[in-house]
Amino acid sequence: MPDPIRLGIAGLGTVGRGVVRIVQRHGATLAARAGRPVEIVAVSARSRDKDRGVDLSAYGWEDDPVALARRPDIDLFVELMGGADGPAKDATEAALEAGHDVVTANKALLAIHGQALAETAERAGAAIRFEAAVAGGIPVVKALTEGLAGNEVTRILGVMNGTCNYILTRMENAGLTYDEAFAEADGLGYLEADPELDVGGIDAAHKLALLSAIAFGTRVDFPNVRLEGIGSVSIDDIRHAADMGYRIKLLGVARMTGRGLEQRMTPCLVPASSPLGQLEGGTNMVVLEGDSVGQIVLRGAGAGEGPTASAVMADVMDLARGIRLPVFGQPATGLRAARAAVAAVPAPYYLRMTLVDKPGALAKIARALGEAGISIDRMRQYDHAEGTAPVLIVTHRTTRGALEEAIAAMDATGVVAESAVALRIEEL
Amino acid sequence: MPDPIRLGIAGLGTVGRGVVRIVQRHGATLAARAGRPVEIVAVSARSRDKDRGVDLSAYGWEDDPVALARRPDIDLFVELMGGADGPAKDATEAALEAGHDVVTANKALLAIHGQALAETAERAGAAIRFEAAVAGGIPVVKALTEGLAGNEVTRILGVMNGTCNYILTRMENAGLTYDEAFAEADGLGYLEADPELDVGGIDAAHKLALLSAIAFGTRVDFPNVRLEGIGSVSIDDIRHAADMGYRIKLLGVARMTGRGLEQRMTPCLVPASSPLGQLEGGTNMVVLEGDSVGQIVLRGAGAGEGPTASAVMADVMDLARGIRLPVFGQPATGLRAARAAVAAVPAPYYLRMTLVDKPGALAKIARALGEAGISIDRMRQYDHAEGTAPVLIVTHRTTRGALEEAIAAMDATGVVAESAVALRIEEL
Repeated sequence: MPDPIRLGIAGLGTVGRGVVRIVQRHGATLAARAGRPVEIVAVSARSRDKDRGVDLSAYGWEDDPVALARRPDIDLFVELMGGADGPAKDATEAALEAGHDVVTANKALLAIHGQALAETAERAGAAIRFEAAVAGGIPVVKALTEGLAGNEVTRILGVMNGTCNYILTRMENAGLTYDEAFAEADGLGYLEADPELDVGGIDAAHKLALLSAIAFGTRVDFPNVRLEGIGSVSIDDIRHAADMGYRIKLLGVARMTGRGLEQRMTPCLVPASSPLGQLEGGTNMVVLEGDSVGQIVLRGAGAGEGPTASAVMADVMDLARGIRLPVFGQPATGLRAARAAVAAVPAPYYLRMTLVDKPGALAKIARALGEAGISIDRMRQYDHAEGTAPVLIVTHRTTRGALEEAIAAMDATGVVAESAVALRIEEL
Repeated sequence: MPDPIRLGIAGLGTVGRGVVRIVQRHGATLAARAGRPVEIVAVSARSRDKDRGVDLSAYGWEDDPVALARRPDIDLFVELMGGADGPAKDATEAALEAGHDVVTANKALLAIHGQALAETAERAGAAIRFEAAVAGGIPVVKALTEGLAGNEVTRILGVMNGTCNYILTRMENAGLTYDEAFAEADGLGYLEADPELDVGGIDAAHKLALLSAIAFGTRVDFPNVRLEGIGSVSIDDIRHAADMGYRIKLLGVARMTGRGLEQRMTPCLVPASSPLGQLEGGTNMVVLEGDSVGQIVLRGAGAGEGPTASAVMADVMDLARGIRLPVFGQPATGLRAARAAVAAVPAPYYLRMTLVDKPGALAKIARALGEAGISIDRMRQYDHAEGTAPVLIVTHRTTRGALEEAIAAMDATGVVAESAVALRIEEL
């Protein structure tokens, strides 16, 4: 049997513990599949004494993850500390500079420093793998980089933050307000220490930016992901959208257009009958569209010990088996800087507004939309309440620019009691 | 730029043409991703003169695929002729013996000769890749072999024959009989020349047997896939199943049990609200379950020029990038012979029968089930027609053996006008 692959694991939280458990439980299977043993040599974490429910006595210990990353007796540094900067970045750089491959679950680190780290890796002849950074246990990085390697990728769509999808699903199914569903998710431990990473869409946007780089051969461009969290999604919109046959999801979309790279992580409506629309709870889903393959849908757990550790192990096993690819699927120095698209491609929109209950009010709204070049696909007026009338409109394809113009014109008519909420309907 | 990878393509039907188109259309992208050009050197097909809508003038031509497979100026032989024996097998063997890697879409070839071919490949130091042989464009071989490499695979489920799913979906949605839906599928060109490959479940069983080998480290064991086609599925059962919240699918299931490897390709009920239950038309779906990752669902087109060519190109690109794995994920000589499980693990069953409309009839049926140790979860009796009463029963978990005993006992009661149809309900 050839030499073992020797791991140093930094970070022994949920995911780190999961990786240790897999290596301990499945040693013989891993060796048969990799053609060589998979061994843990040393580990590092904040506290040595904490009981993590796994036996670490056979492994070396380093208080300093950078020292672990540099150990000459490891082949592979597994970074599971998290954080875009600080120890995670320092240790990753140290590992690469020592010529060690790196496997990481750290989406923030790569979304922000991915290009520099990929260049460092290439200079050192080392690999960085990050399956666990995107959509937990779903092998989406592999599906995109390798499975769709013969395709021009036309669009990526994804529900990639389970916490947001849990909150939105609970609002719809249990009739909770956003604040109630948020509190429930918090009580279940689903939220990051900084909840804005989840509900603000930042965490999911990190993941989208990584997939974009692979799909379009561009440098990771997280700052140009158009970001809008779920904090402004109301139970009213969730219900009205459902009435019209849609569900509201925090949806990541990336596509290369004639006007540049479009990347968005925003609440969108999707058809309730589509796989994305049917996705409930904390599950993740990524839809990959390619010019040959059509549409591939991948669904699975986006977080948790087992699924994330499974993804880490997929990378470890690839490296153990000698599978080595550039970080983003092609040499980092050859990645183009993405030109960010200023505006998203046109789409239908959902509009919800409240009108004063006066004759001719609806006609004024319809005229304002028409004058902005926006045609109406469907309109519904609901029961009047205290002199006002809620109105829902689904438009034909239009741009957000035209829509904002129309909303301003509608507000100026004097018949709008509550200005329009506009949500994009992503066509599938 | 390093040396090109040089392809010889045998078979220029739908898929072969698709592969040629991708190589011609995406040359620059493929080269950037592979780090080397991807070139077609020569092709082979039955008729040289046929207009296939692609320009083949730059490529060499071989009338004999075996001669193509042996050409010293190719690195990689792409086998797209089909058929378990004959030219496909001869040419594949010739390519391997010449030390050439092989990419194939041929499920029958590998389901029947996979072990011998894998051993030949290993002796020659060559690779065989077959992503396109299973579930068309869905990168399921890669997801299972690599993405889930850290998992003990606990179960594989799949709808892997789009034609069968199309027929079943049309029966349910358009109220067609099996014969009508079959004729419609035939008219659309969805059926193989020998339709029994589709509707008999053979084609899908070939695919399942390949996935089993990867998942469980066993030799491909197609003869022990329990096979039952969709020809006996009636519109009545589809409707009654829907009433009870289920859909009928031709479902492949593979799992390793304490009593051996269980492989089935049979019509089963699945919950209508599950991803498998929601799958309509010709789309394929594979569900992979692992001890760490939980449940991963993969969905996409299972056939057609673009999707299948996309899968072929994924394999071509892997080999161009130097990704080389044993055929079934671990050395062929190390694969264990699978012990086939005699009986499937217990499951709930759906029973439909017609009783004579006499007092006490239902009680006799319930007693027969009880005496066979089968308890009833739900029962429905429908409107009587001409002295008979259709009855539906969903049982708690039981074995097919106990069920057959109960059906014989029910038939002996004298109250059964039409003997029970029994369909397994696969739990998800």
